[in-house]
Amino acid sequence: MAEIQQKFGLPKRYEGSEPSVWVEYIQLALDYKPLNLGQGFPDYPPPKYVTDALLEVAKGTKHHQYTRDFGHPRLVEALAKLYSKLIGRDIDSRREVMTTLGAYEALYATITGHVDQGDEVIIIEPFFDCYEPMVRYAGGVPRFIALKPKNTEAKFLSSGDFVLDKAELEGLFNTKTKAIILNTPNNPLGKVFTLEELTFIADLCKKHNVLCISDEVYEWMVYKPNEHIRIVTLPGMWERTITIGSAGKTFSVTGWKLGWAYGPANLMYNLLMVHQNSVYTGCTPIQEATARAFEKELERLGSDESYFVSISKELEPKRAFVAKFLQEAGFKPIIPEGGYFMMADWTPLESLVDLNAETDKYKDYRFTKWMTKNIGLQGIPPSVFYSEEHKSLGENFVRYCFIKEDKNLQAAADILNKWKSEKKQ
Amino acid sequence: MAEIQQKFGLPKRYEGSEPSVWVEYIQLALDYKPLNLGQGFPDYPPPKYVTDALLEVAKGTKHHQYTRDFGHPRLVEALAKLYSKLIGRDIDSRREVMTTLGAYEALYATITGHVDQGDEVIIIEPFFDCYEPMVRYAGGVPRFIALKPKNTEAKFLSSGDFVLDKAELEGLFNTKTKAIILNTPNNPLGKVFTLEELTFIADLCKKHNVLCISDEVYEWMVYKPNEHIRIVTLPGMWERTITIGSAGKTFSVTGWKLGWAYGPANLMYNLLMVHQNSVYTGCTPIQEATARAFEKELERLGSDESYFVSISKELEPKRAFVAKFLQEAGFKPIIPEGGYFMMADWTPLESLVDLNAETDKYKDYRFTKWMTKNIGLQGIPPSVFYSEEHKSLGENFVRYCFIKEDKNLQAAADILNKWKSEKKQ
Repeated sequence: MAEIQQKFGLPKRYEGSEPSVWVEYIQLALDYKPLNLGQGFPDYPPPKYVTDALLEVAKGTKHHQYTRDFGHPRLVEALAKLYSKLIGRDIDSRREVMTTLGAYEALYATITGHVDQGDEVIIIEPFFDCYEPMVRYAGGVPRFIALKPKNTEAKFLSSGDFVLDKAELEGLFNTKTKAIILNTPNNPLGKVFTLEELTFIADLCKKHNVLCISDEVYEWMVYKPNEHIRIVTLPGMWERTITIGSAGKTFSVTGWKLGWAYGPANLMYNLLMVHQNSVYTGCTPIQEATARAFEKELERLGSDESYFVSISKELEPKRAFVAKFLQEAGFKPIIPEGGYFMMADWTPLESLVDLNAETDKYKDYRFTKWMTKNIGLQGIPPSVFYSEEHKSLGENFVRYCFIKEDKNLQAAADILNKWKSEKKQ
Repeated sequence: MAEIQQKFGLPKRYEGSEPSVWVEYIQLALDYKPLNLGQGFPDYPPPKYVTDALLEVAKGTKHHQYTRDFGHPRLVEALAKLYSKLIGRDIDSRREVMTTLGAYEALYATITGHVDQGDEVIIIEPFFDCYEPMVRYAGGVPRFIALKPKNTEAKFLSSGDFVLDKAELEGLFNTKTKAIILNTPNNPLGKVFTLEELTFIADLCKKHNVLCISDEVYEWMVYKPNEHIRIVTLPGMWERTITIGSAGKTFSVTGWKLGWAYGPANLMYNLLMVHQNSVYTGCTPIQEATARAFEKELERLGSDESYFVSISKELEPKRAFVAKFLQEAGFKPIIPEGGYFMMADWTPLESLVDLNAETDKYKDYRFTKWMTKNIGLQGIPPSVFYSEEHKSLGENFVRYCFIKEDKNLQAAADILNKWKSEKKQ
């Protein structure tokens, strides 16, 4: 056995890989059965017209065999139609759109399809945790820059208070820079980048001939007066931007694992080559059902009946409720401008928590594990969204997901209330 | 634009990548609308209990969000139960099974999760065409060995007549050999490896401490008296074998894109790391529906009602019919022992075909394209299933798929009949 173990270890490019935080925290939830505000998915049914679309497809016999490798024809048509309207430019459904197995595979195909040995990739922190290993496996060198709060004294911080230092960002661009990864609305912070911020980034991309990878999976969850701006719409950016979206996030069906990327044909070609050699093609019934859901949305785009409009209205009171109960419990929440996560500073509660009961390196891991095991409320430790060198920036926080049933959010509030009142006695 | 084109070419490890034969031949089918015996999927409805399972899942609201990353719990349970019975060993559903986005992703995760820079991988020709690029992208060196006919004069060749030269195979194993890829039943040949052949391969794997990657996606399509033998069941092979299967092939729903791999936990770990960083998790409703289909099959395993039994009975007359009409038309078919493809030597018909009308490098490309455009019958050129150095071994053949409606197989027969009788006049 020793001989086998030694020979069949991980290839060098994967060395240091470990099961992700999600594996560990999903197991934690299974073991302790806390009220789970961890992973980002709704705990209530998706819109009925969406699941009905899958039901109709399943009833038929037509859509159960292989479909076109780079995207089911009806779906890439619908996506091209939608985004052509949204970005004001005719998108070619056959050459400028690719569907993927979740936005996750779109990120993988984009990053590994473009990043070569030694290329630098700028990653804005906090970031969705898969960006970094994907860049490293491709032989790239991640260069990190953190969003930092400009006003830490306010009672309520907004995600908009977190900004990039312009000189620091400019200093990262050089001849080795292949790409920058943008995520707006940002997970976990909820920051929605402003036109001014995006223009600054776009100008640097153009000046240094850099690819912009724009992860916009939360594009429809944006709270007024904030507005989602697609960086691809800025002058001169179409030819250097790949934009990534998600049916899972858009239609509240994360389990469908359907995503896409769109951009100019020459940049998309690289993604096709990765896709062709790793998964080849996507799931036909899921793509057909999603195409039908998009066609419905295209008919009512911009109207109040549109799910793309109603989803944010549905989430806004949840956001307010969670911010309120967190604050009342002693947290300092950061109000997100978009997405469905809320970061909150838990350190005002440190004296009530036995951090020594856990052995993890980072305090936020210890806080979230202790809370799961002892108080019965689960969140995600945000240090996972920072590079090794900047993990301290995340340690004082916890990330909660608020796309949850009202009664479960109320239960979370009750749990915190009970905990606080017991401590006071 | 020139500057962009130059900087954003394919990374070095992908250089030489080209759209696969499937992309080209699917487009050809769209353009010329031939009777298509090309791609490997049924042109008739899948079993109703399978699509009904998806319908039931779609009706509910429970199975539309993220599931467990390494496989939906109910599905890995069902797979572990099934294969525990089939291989006579208790498989741990949590650590020894992983579900993937088609067998294609299982191959990708297995190959790139195990092959390191400079590792040699033995590939038996003809081979499913993705093996080679997957090995190369991982930095591996493919070493090819072709199955060769031992009896070329027979009127009807069987896929069993194609054998490995034992000394040649033995000569490929050395200290750099990391893995061998076995595919039984083989695509495109239909060869079902015998116990004696598998034992020879297994002994070499054990002697040289080599991983066996066993692609068994056609495990249920085997024609009597041939029998599918899982190499993992041979003594000492569990600890060095990863076996790959496919719901698409097993349940005739290729569009569901659901596959799996099973093997010992230490070898599976490498696959998990690739999966975690490329796609993260699979489609929940599809996995739930497939789990239900497997549970049904587990109840009736081995009985005549089992789809795993009836599928071969359904295919056997199709195989006989296609062999007959190909032979009558002047082809020399190779009767497959398993799978749903038939290779046939087309060179007796060469004088009837204008090979100069096409410009492809290989004759089988020219033959199949000419046939599609002029006679209206599409097959796949088997040289794609051979390495560059051995493509001549495939050039005299065409691959037809026979999991097609009887009326379409009859139409193919009619097309060939008509062509031949016109030529005689």
